[in-house]
Amino acid sequence: MSEIIPGLEGIVVSETRLSRVDGEAGRLTIGGFPIEELAPRAAYEEVLFLLCHDRLPSQAELAALRSDLRQRRVVPPVAIAAVQEAAERKLHPMDALRMGASLVSLNDSAPRDESRGANLSRGLSLVAAFPTLVATYWRALQGEQAVAPNPELDHAANYLYMLTGEAADAAAVRALETYLNTVIDHGLNASTFAARVIVSTRSDLTSAIVGAIGALKGPLHGGAPGPALDMVFEIQARSLRNTTDIKSEARAWAEQAIGRGDRLMGFGHRVYKVRDPRADVLNRAAADLFKNRDDRAIYEDARTVETEVLAALERAKPGRRIQTNVEFYTALVLHGIGLDTELFSPTFAIGRAGGWMAHVLEQIDEDRLIRPRAAYIGDFDREWVAMEGR
Amino acid sequence: MSEIIPGLEGIVVSETRLSRVDGEAGRLTIGGFPIEELAPRAAYEEVLFLLCHDRLPSQAELAALRSDLRQRRVVPPVAIAAVQEAAERKLHPMDALRMGASLVSLNDSAPRDESRGANLSRGLSLVAAFPTLVATYWRALQGEQAVAPNPELDHAANYLYMLTGEAADAAAVRALETYLNTVIDHGLNASTFAARVIVSTRSDLTSAIVGAIGALKGPLHGGAPGPALDMVFEIQARSLRNTTDIKSEARAWAEQAIGRGDRLMGFGHRVYKVRDPRADVLNRAAADLFKNRDDRAIYEDARTVETEVLAALERAKPGRRIQTNVEFYTALVLHGIGLDTELFSPTFAIGRAGGWMAHVLEQIDEDRLIRPRAAYIGDFDREWVAMEGR
Repeated sequence: MSEIIPGLEGIVVSETRLSRVDGEAGRLTIGGFPIEELAPRAAYEEVLFLLCHDRLPSQAELAALRSDLRQRRVVPPVAIAAVQEAAERKLHPMDALRMGASLVSLNDSAPRDESRGANLSRGLSLVAAFPTLVATYWRALQGEQAVAPNPELDHAANYLYMLTGEAADAAAVRALETYLNTVIDHGLNASTFAARVIVSTRSDLTSAIVGAIGALKGPLHGGAPGPALDMVFEIQARSLRNTTDIKSEARAWAEQAIGRGDRLMGFGHRVYKVRDPRADVLNRAAADLFKNRDDRAIYEDARTVETEVLAALERAKPGRRIQTNVEFYTALVLHGIGLDTELFSPTFAIGRAGGWMAHVLEQIDEDRLIRPRAAYIGDFDREWVAMEGR
Repeated sequence: MSEIIPGLEGIVVSETRLSRVDGEAGRLTIGGFPIEELAPRAAYEEVLFLLCHDRLPSQAELAALRSDLRQRRVVPPVAIAAVQEAAERKLHPMDALRMGASLVSLNDSAPRDESRGANLSRGLSLVAAFPTLVATYWRALQGEQAVAPNPELDHAANYLYMLTGEAADAAAVRALETYLNTVIDHGLNASTFAARVIVSTRSDLTSAIVGAIGALKGPLHGGAPGPALDMVFEIQARSLRNTTDIKSEARAWAEQAIGRGDRLMGFGHRVYKVRDPRADVLNRAAADLFKNRDDRAIYEDARTVETEVLAALERAKPGRRIQTNVEFYTALVLHGIGLDTELFSPTFAIGRAGGWMAHVLEQIDEDRLIRPRAAYIGDFDREWVAMEGR
């Protein structure tokens, strides 16, 4: 029997032209572009086109894609009913998204067509449906009626509109767009890999993406930016209570947490040994977003907390050079856009949907069943004992 | 960059005590039992208990498990609505099952509890719900109202009851039970692996099994026993038309098909180099099922076709010793039970549900993220071009 490779760490399972994570150099390439070149400039639909076609769209192509996505925003009524009931029962937003996405198949005009074209169409339907499903769930959670999609607005702007019923300002839309682009793909992360395993049996794209949603839900996926900001809120509260400044509270808090051996949410990453390049992109997005706002204290306090935590980590673990990770800035950006923590994971999914779709299409082209083995450690040759003898 | 291992073939990712597939020796061990020792004797609930607890249940334990499963057969109304609409829209039965299974979360009494116990409970709910979902879909496909679960009947018998509204005879229930036991687990097949990848992020069991359903849908999974019997039906029809005997029609058909290079459904298997042990178990189950029946001609004709196809294969590819695979006998058994071809894949899922559940619990105990890598073959350092410049 071959040796066991826990977690398949270091094993290379396939080729991809979608993204490259270079953890040593702190470099992320998406569709050939350094993330910092692409994410702050592109509309989400442009990056989606890039991943599917390996080039940026022309004006006409972009308009056609936007129009297509707009028409796919309406989901089957039973999907609306399901995510609303999920909200009433306080289910996890990713469970609601999984249910709703699975039901998007009911709109499938050729459900038994497993051609690449049919799967491409399924991908666009899911990308378009995610904001509808998440916003409907969220509004039901607040006891509010769903807001119909707004055909005047593009993908990112329409999501914010469906959450609130009002058009968001341009700075918030730009920040969301940058965030969605930043997280659209990240090598063979666990959810993307799950999607590829599923479709590798020649199943369909919807089945694959529904599986990916399930994987993204898990906290080990790294899609849990909520707690990073909780730390900042806690330090702000202490500072108010103790009438101290944020800097000294942050320092005391960090030293206590490190002393207790707590895992500090928002710091360190399994893959990146140096600074996560997404962190820089989102740090700049947060700075732009908060620039002229009255509530920019949270941004400034977060940066103060970050500095103090990093300093405390360096004192406690010299030379480890632990860095702020993408979750920290994600939390800042999404909070600045006005999203509740509960929406962070499903908003991540709205971004990652494009990467899942492109990976699934790539796997369809590769057409190779993914099927490793397990080492059996159980008994052999047990003999049946009838009920009377047990 | 390490070498690419296509399909992860030969890679061992984890340990399991659930099943062992020994393709060289033609041996399948389930929970320590040779498949031929276990499958024809046990009730499905006994094998489910075996996989979850590594021993057979006592009478009291079996009664408790059966009672528990019985109470979990009722699925949320929106799940009924979803699978019925899926049938109206002629969706694939596995798409319907995926939707319905995903919606079973709505019955979750503690949806944010990710403990092992909560996940065990989710597994039992899904195992119990699968027959309800499949039968409701199937009846809607026939334009018929759903049949409520029958609390007098155990798992396998209740499934047949919900399909038809009538209690099946003991021979059919026994044959189904043997089939479900035979397919309950099979090493790290692609759907089971997908489930383990999903839950490896510390997601929940429902998310994992919904992903597994998606993977099982794919024809490369090997879950497509329908076409094996189509061949027998076609040869029967030719024999009637040409007033020849089955044996000579089968011989001519097999030689033509091999000559054209057709893939012969029902023969050969990726893993088993010698005879698939499940084929023997199901062959015996089919023989028992058809023993005293008026319609046993299909069984006898199928065996004749099998003999002729194997002989033709041996003549065309001497020494390759291609064997009849499990799909061939599966088709015979399920057809003999009275199931339409359309129900073969979801009935496979009803059996495999127990293995998925046990593997997911095993992965929860292992608690190791499964995340291989991909080799990037795309460009680097592309530069952004504004729309006007494209």
